[in-house]
Amino acid sequence: MRFLHTADWHIGKKLHGFDLIQEQKDAFDQIKAIASQQHVDAIVIAGDLFDRAVASEDSVSLLNQMLMELNLKEHYPLLAISGNHDSAIRLDTGSYWFKETQFYMQTHFEDAFEPVTIQDTQFFLLPYFQPQMARNFFGDDSLTKMDQIMAKTVELMEQKFAPDKKHVLVAHFFAAGSSHTDSETTLEVGGLNPVPVDILTKFDYTALGHLHDKDALKQPTVRYAGSPVKFSTSEAETEKGVWIVDTEPYQVQWVPLRPLHDIRILEHSFEELTDPALYRTIPDEDYVAIRLTDTAVISDVMNRLRHYYPRIVSLSRLNGRETLAAKDQDVRVNMDPQALFDSFFEKMTDQKPTEMQEKIVRESFAELQRGGSYEAN
Amino acid sequence: MRFLHTADWHIGKKLHGFDLIQEQKDAFDQIKAIASQQHVDAIVIAGDLFDRAVASEDSVSLLNQMLMELNLKEHYPLLAISGNHDSAIRLDTGSYWFKETQFYMQTHFEDAFEPVTIQDTQFFLLPYFQPQMARNFFGDDSLTKMDQIMAKTVELMEQKFAPDKKHVLVAHFFAAGSSHTDSETTLEVGGLNPVPVDILTKFDYTALGHLHDKDALKQPTVRYAGSPVKFSTSEAETEKGVWIVDTEPYQVQWVPLRPLHDIRILEHSFEELTDPALYRTIPDEDYVAIRLTDTAVISDVMNRLRHYYPRIVSLSRLNGRETLAAKDQDVRVNMDPQALFDSFFEKMTDQKPTEMQEKIVRESFAELQRGGSYEAN
Repeated sequence: MRFLHTADWHIGKKLHGFDLIQEQKDAFDQIKAIASQQHVDAIVIAGDLFDRAVASEDSVSLLNQMLMELNLKEHYPLLAISGNHDSAIRLDTGSYWFKETQFYMQTHFEDAFEPVTIQDTQFFLLPYFQPQMARNFFGDDSLTKMDQIMAKTVELMEQKFAPDKKHVLVAHFFAAGSSHTDSETTLEVGGLNPVPVDILTKFDYTALGHLHDKDALKQPTVRYAGSPVKFSTSEAETEKGVWIVDTEPYQVQWVPLRPLHDIRILEHSFEELTDPALYRTIPDEDYVAIRLTDTAVISDVMNRLRHYYPRIVSLSRLNGRETLAAKDQDVRVNMDPQALFDSFFEKMTDQKPTEMQEKIVRESFAELQRGGSYEAN
Repeated sequence: MRFLHTADWHIGKKLHGFDLIQEQKDAFDQIKAIASQQHVDAIVIAGDLFDRAVASEDSVSLLNQMLMELNLKEHYPLLAISGNHDSAIRLDTGSYWFKETQFYMQTHFEDAFEPVTIQDTQFFLLPYFQPQMARNFFGDDSLTKMDQIMAKTVELMEQKFAPDKKHVLVAHFFAAGSSHTDSETTLEVGGLNPVPVDILTKFDYTALGHLHDKDALKQPTVRYAGSPVKFSTSEAETEKGVWIVDTEPYQVQWVPLRPLHDIRILEHSFEELTDPALYRTIPDEDYVAIRLTDTAVISDVMNRLRHYYPRIVSLSRLNGRETLAAKDQDVRVNMDPQALFDSFFEKMTDQKPTEMQEKIVRESFAELQRGGSYEAN
């Protein structure tokens, strides 16, 4: 069979205050067209359909419309899971009815072990889950790390493998060795141990969601689809698209999506930026991240630049104070939680934490780590 | 055919901070049992399924479970509309799939004119709507009053009447001549003109939602089902239940629901209330509204009474200052918006509004009334 693998739609997502609904609609239309041109037998959506647990009415209406078109109008079987941005309970609404038309919206950890068979393939749909759910399900409190949990999970799935079928895992997590972009929340990605990729080679294909760049992981049979739309300036250079996967013979093919409005990083002086030779080449509706190379102070710079670039999403100065602040932030990304707390405390109070305060924080982190709700790498 | 008429489930509703989820589950189980005993062919839910536009995850999960049981497990056709408490858009999620199993969740004004036929009956499902939706639909800006709008609406529905069928309207509004209880927001009920009942006699039966007491309206073929659970102390004496409606020959039958935990109004002195002869007769889980008859000050009265009545939902003094305040409130219910504003302004600022301020308010009300978003009776 042949299926399309997409993920991380994040319906309702905003880019620095700009609504991306037009871009998301356009990407959806392209995905629908690709599904038709490629004659796929099913569509996989690997989590994070919404950007927020409580999506706006507009977002709810848009996603409902999209899923209806794919499943009820175009009659594609749909295989979807909830991601960490979705409310599993809200996304579950209607799921018992969806099954009647081969729309499998899977939001329960425990249902991941009942594969959905479509043509020659068994799909195991594993939604985003908290380690505690796995501990409850397996009745094993020693499961604190994602590698242990996934080893047990895959082991149980293997017992359900029909020998004459192909086996595809659909999941939403951070796979070991992946790189990531700014639009995935750093703390989320770093908060759970990564899943070692070698566990996943039991499957003929693993359709992942969570990271927004298809190149975050380079594995022949374990792939992130990435988001269909660029969600941050760090994704300015990444190509968006979908995977078309053939199960027999196995083959994957990348089909790119053309951005309706692109994100552009402009590293120039104020003089260059206000030169028609440059600004006339940039469509008004594109999103622009400006890195100003000037060293001198420029008054009212944001408002003056908006005149040429109406959709500025960020403005930084390569040679100014902001650059130092940004570097400072880069350092913080790699701090351990204790050091991060100390740095935050000092920044907020202009004092170092007392010994007693440090002790409370240290013990809290230790307790969280034992409980497994927070698992530092 | 025979159908069950219920309404105003308000899943997620709290009674003075007390969660009513147990009461709602219990009422649901009783409704399901009645449907089975009475061998009904369909179940009508006339709006306000949720208490809030954005329901909690627990509420979403509970309603999903209830609807699934009725439609997918027990195989009843379901005819439901959105009420003023529901978010029509959120409640619409899944509705295109629901139809496949005769679950009609109708949230769009314009779809009210496509009846659903079950056995010998055409059901017209008219969700709660804003007058502007009707003006847009009919392309007629002169429609500002509910009586005009409903006259046009019923006229168009009549054109769809199949002569060999019975005709049932399911709707959610305030019918003229109805009395109401405190759990329906006064401003909502008063904010729209009432719908004259004689317009509705075109239908063999009108299954209404909105008001929480079945006796709010006394008409042979136009009925409120009321809420299945008591939602305010003003409903302490009302009987909750469902209507069982036979279309041929026409017959309605009231089947009461037994409250899991009742609401009781106790009008006594402190001494009487703390007498075992009284408090031992009141189950701990019942909700108690106390009207204290003492005139003397009693210290820490609420905490002391909670010892005997753990679920006190209100405490007032028949002979104290509180009574005067309550009477004051009763007067306000019947004020027109302008007088209500003046009273509010005076209460907040201890001054009467100036002429200029009065003018602004008067003009604003007038403008709202022209626009039809606010229609004073």
